[in-house]
Amino acid sequence: MGLALTEAKSAEMRGEVPIGAVIVKDGAILASAGNRTRELNDPTAHAEMLVIREACRALSNERLTGCDLYVTLEPCTMCAAAVSFARIRRLYYGAQDIKGGGVENGARFYAQPTCLHVPEVYPGFREQEAEDMLKAFFRTRRL
Amino acid sequence: MGLALTEAKSAEMRGEVPIGAVIVKDGAILASAGNRTRELNDPTAHAEMLVIREACRALSNERLTGCDLYVTLEPCTMCAAAVSFARIRRLYYGAQDIKGGGVENGARFYAQPTCLHVPEVYPGFREQEAEDMLKAFFRTRRL
Repeated sequence: MGLALTEAKSAEMRGEVPIGAVIVKDGAILASAGNRTRELNDPTAHAEMLVIREACRALSNERLTGCDLYVTLEPCTMCAAAVSFARIRRLYYGAQDIKGGGVENGARFYAQPTCLHVPEVYPGFREQEAEDMLKAFFRTRRL
Repeated sequence: MGLALTEAKSAEMRGEVPIGAVIVKDGAILASAGNRTRELNDPTAHAEMLVIREACRALSNERLTGCDLYVTLEPCTMCAAAVSFARIRRLYYGAQDIKGGGVENGARFYAQPTCLHVPEVYPGFREQEAEDMLKAFFRTRRL
């Protein structure tokens, strides 16, 4: 999660919302990325989507069996679904996202009976640091 | 929708699940694609995601204001969320997807109070052709 927080910080320096994600398998980092929606003009370029795609490329496989994803903020519904499609084993996240989250908020994607693969979910992982970074970012945006 | 069905057919010829999508703005086609999850080893490479990303690149904008998306099957929850993030104006789709859909089935993403942009939704557009193609595909897979 330390690296995910570093990726979030880097995203912030690029003018993006500070969210970072990392995928790990057997103790090795397969992919790490920060949010790049503005830079890429791509509303799907959330940190989670970027690391899932990068890790799939690294493994030449569309299933990330045995892989764990660390992300600084609760995934939105789009990313929660992508995590399920990619068969991620464990999802660790930092801050909760009451407005935009899709795991313990909003659509609660994994609680849907039609969700075929549910990862183990560990929220609140270095939550305060992730939350402080996001709050500081949105505070400066509102000035 | 004719072009979306052609893209679905092309996807099938490549060994992918036959789903196709097109984005139109002011009567002009901005992007068209079929499903490429297997070819790209990318669980996020659904037809809708590919056309959203392509159209955003074409317009150099992460918002597809005034754009309409045609897709042969009811979008899954991941794609339904991406359609909302991209600010797609109208969503036309063919067959309903009881198991995997996220619009009128499953998470019903646009019915969530946390969904910030809800497109106009027109289901059942050339439904029978889309459904026949999918059924024929899965029938051969089960042999």
